[in-house]
Amino acid sequence: MPAAGVARARVASAPASSANLGPGFDCLAVALELRVVVRVKPAEQLAISAEGEGSDLPTTPDHLAARVLRDVLGHDRAAVHVSSDIPVGRGLGSSAALAAAAAAAAGADDPLAVAARLDGHPENAAASVVGGLVAATTLDDDQPWAVSLPLDERAAFVVLVPEQGLSTEQARAALPDEVPHGDAARNLGRLGVLIGALADLSLFRPGLMDDRLHQPYRGSLMPQAGELIRGLEEAGALGAAWSGAGPSIVALCLQERASPVAEAGSELLRGAGIAGDARVLTPDMRGLQVAEA
Amino acid sequence: MPAAGVARARVASAPASSANLGPGFDCLAVALELRVVVRVKPAEQLAISAEGEGSDLPTTPDHLAARVLRDVLGHDRAAVHVSSDIPVGRGLGSSAALAAAAAAAAGADDPLAVAARLDGHPENAAASVVGGLVAATTLDDDQPWAVSLPLDERAAFVVLVPEQGLSTEQARAALPDEVPHGDAARNLGRLGVLIGALADLSLFRPGLMDDRLHQPYRGSLMPQAGELIRGLEEAGALGAAWSGAGPSIVALCLQERASPVAEAGSELLRGAGIAGDARVLTPDMRGLQVAEA
Repeated sequence: MPAAGVARARVASAPASSANLGPGFDCLAVALELRVVVRVKPAEQLAISAEGEGSDLPTTPDHLAARVLRDVLGHDRAAVHVSSDIPVGRGLGSSAALAAAAAAAAGADDPLAVAARLDGHPENAAASVVGGLVAATTLDDDQPWAVSLPLDERAAFVVLVPEQGLSTEQARAALPDEVPHGDAARNLGRLGVLIGALADLSLFRPGLMDDRLHQPYRGSLMPQAGELIRGLEEAGALGAAWSGAGPSIVALCLQERASPVAEAGSELLRGAGIAGDARVLTPDMRGLQVAEA
Repeated sequence: MPAAGVARARVASAPASSANLGPGFDCLAVALELRVVVRVKPAEQLAISAEGEGSDLPTTPDHLAARVLRDVLGHDRAAVHVSSDIPVGRGLGSSAALAAAAAAAAGADDPLAVAARLDGHPENAAASVVGGLVAATTLDDDQPWAVSLPLDERAAFVVLVPEQGLSTEQARAALPDEVPHGDAARNLGRLGVLIGALADLSLFRPGLMDDRLHQPYRGSLMPQAGELIRGLEEAGALGAAWSGAGPSIVALCLQERASPVAEAGSELLRGAGIAGDARVLTPDMRGLQVAEA
């Protein structure tokens, strides 16, 4: 439904997200407190400005914000300003958050559908739109469908963010065509139980964040991932896993354990020879926010 | 921890269950209102009597109740009476329910662990012990771990129960060693979203009960399964799937639709040339019940 133009200036913001949460390959994600803000106002022609994370990306018509505008409006005659705290290409859903915020700022009726379509990750888009913990998938009609899931208020996440990004395409190409049936069943069982344990962390048990569907195949892209995950768990995290397609590593913690786990995470990065930092990130429960600018 | 003997007479009962619920192969199950009652009292030697479903099984020391006694007590010097409404070998978790009830009646500290170990299906055992909707898996220490999941109060189940049983061993042997990665991911995504939708049926969407991990491979064991599933969905079920390893078919319904769906189910069984019946079963929220006899 392309509109004739941007009717009025709007500003929208959306949180980062960590997808592929533990055994939840391509379906389980949590929104995290980093945020991208997108302001869209009517203009004679496309003009993109940016600050913060991702501001070094070319502000050409290929910019994701411009592609979202054309998808929503049928044209890109607007001035767009993007201000982001979300590191790009690090497995924190920066593009899904940007797409969702840009779609909402452009006046889209269904920013989730736009973001899922253009970014390709319904679970990241759902976390950015809905906030909190979500499960999402693509149904047979090719539409994304997402549900909110309860998340224990005591949950915090520690994220190890390497300076060097990883390409999502490379990570996708590392996946095999087939997997052992037992591995598929193992992820399913852990996903079901993990969803229950995320609602009440006292039900968490070691191993519930394990994955057999993507991490083992992507190991060569980030050889230190295994030791970082083990180190975070030894430092007191309930469990840890790749964040999205990496290279960030996310650890699920009780809030009271988050600071020591983050300190251990900094040490682990140094020990592994990886430039980057360890951040405590609390879940974002607000999701997409939109206002007239 | 074998005890010296059965200290006192106890009676325990546990509900049936439908496992492999939709995409939840080997992990998602719901307890259903059919029940097995097991009474155990001290005796000089093993004596088993039975009535109702399964009462035609040999009451020898190989009987599951006797195996449970020996596992719990270290001997089987007890009189056991089993009275069951749960059809045997039909994918309704009769053996997990019997094992859980027998373990509890024998005084086991952890009837779930006993039932999961002897029956081999932690999700059936968990549903029979906890009641309601559960996710369960086996952790790395070989112990079962289960969580309760919220289930919309409007949920009812229609179960088509063929007279002729299917062997679980045969069903297990039909599974492939490997499956497409995309199928594993598809079940995962549907499982996550289905869990959210079972808590609030207004979030249900067509296709959420689909499975790619066992039903397609077991089709030759029950060639009419596909048409029964489609027929139930056309009759107003939200979704339908094999119950456990079959041959029963279970349909998730809003309560108000359950009667017409069951009527259609009877028609479908007749049309497919399958002797059997269609039952409306409400979820059992009580799980395992134990009392001094």
